[in-house]
Amino acid sequence: MMSQLTPTGRTQVKRLPNRASYDSETIYHILDEAFVCHIGFVVEGQPFVIPTGYGRLGDTVYVHGSAASRMLRTLSEGVQVCVTVTLLDGLVLARAVFHHSMNYRSVVILGRARLVEDPEEKMRALEAITNHIVHARWKDARLPTDTELKATSVLALAISEASAKIRTGPPKDDEEDYTLPIWAGVVPLRLVADAPVPDPRLVRGLAPPAYAQKYSR
Amino acid sequence: MMSQLTPTGRTQVKRLPNRASYDSETIYHILDEAFVCHIGFVVEGQPFVIPTGYGRLGDTVYVHGSAASRMLRTLSEGVQVCVTVTLLDGLVLARAVFHHSMNYRSVVILGRARLVEDPEEKMRALEAITNHIVHARWKDARLPTDTELKATSVLALAISEASAKIRTGPPKDDEEDYTLPIWAGVVPLRLVADAPVPDPRLVRGLAPPAYAQKYSR
Repeated sequence: MMSQLTPTGRTQVKRLPNRASYDSETIYHILDEAFVCHIGFVVEGQPFVIPTGYGRLGDTVYVHGSAASRMLRTLSEGVQVCVTVTLLDGLVLARAVFHHSMNYRSVVILGRARLVEDPEEKMRALEAITNHIVHARWKDARLPTDTELKATSVLALAISEASAKIRTGPPKDDEEDYTLPIWAGVVPLRLVADAPVPDPRLVRGLAPPAYAQKYSR
Repeated sequence: MMSQLTPTGRTQVKRLPNRASYDSETIYHILDEAFVCHIGFVVEGQPFVIPTGYGRLGDTVYVHGSAASRMLRTLSEGVQVCVTVTLLDGLVLARAVFHHSMNYRSVVILGRARLVEDPEEKMRALEAITNHIVHARWKDARLPTDTELKATSVLALAISEASAKIRTGPPKDDEEDYTLPIWAGVVPLRLVADAPVPDPRLVRGLAPPAYAQKYSR
């Protein structure tokens, strides 16, 4: 299903608009692959950009944190935020310094965060955030207590004012540079998981579950 | 050499302060390992967070972009910015949902960007940005022309109001949860380079240089 978001003056990609996408499925795929988002907010005129985990349910992104943190307290007030997610896919070595670049897929979401107060939505959001790290981890782990729930704030941001930007493929050099004897191409990059490191205090004889043994996204 | 930055009210890490570092060398190592920073700035009250490449020379971070872009034009005006760099090192699977986390190393730099106008500094900054992608690439590539230099803006940000935040090691569960028969531990993550993909229009017979053949950070 292809559903297109309407670009606004703020999400319309102006530089290299051929790299832009407003397709929801494209945006969701990028959000589902990355682990960390960078969330931007303003305190007394100063922007802060903080890395944090997140989860997605349908057209909503959820983040969580200590109810006591500056970030969560600020965001709970419904201020304007920007959530950005970036996947790095390769180093683009062009013949010209000027055309060096990276292959990447990124998403920018603008809006105002909403504090999740409904207990059922809060629980489903925490499940999404946990399962975003490792699919189906929620059913294996010890679930939150009331005290833990109280200490955790969950914020929701609608994926409505959003855009993706994607660069793929070889370098793009100036026509006259293609005959230069300079190696050009792409060094592909990817995030890999190594063998799991068991907690030193693990109950004896517990084998790592498949998702930790052979982690893949 | 250990040199410590002085934390300000804005860079002092308040949540989990034991994860904080204000040591310049620690901050520089994180900046030198990552490829992409997320730069935050404010336009009409709305924060934007944009991923971009960068370079470091001493205590200065440089970013560049099209002189015509909204981001570069905004930043050139000396507005307040936040540059954040995050390295993801592992998924931390605790026994309790509440204690799930990630191992990471991040740096947050606050300040006002300065437009680099001195041609010599601009050239050295572009060299740093290019060599940040691949060490020593600058000497192999076709250097910028005057027209390209004019089309590129370079911004400098001092690494003076900055902090690092680092999480390493196993999960930290509540004492009473350590006997639960739930697997816990860390799934280490790392960024790897695959074999280089030569540009389809490469001059015949050009072998990839060592830094593309066996890329490592």
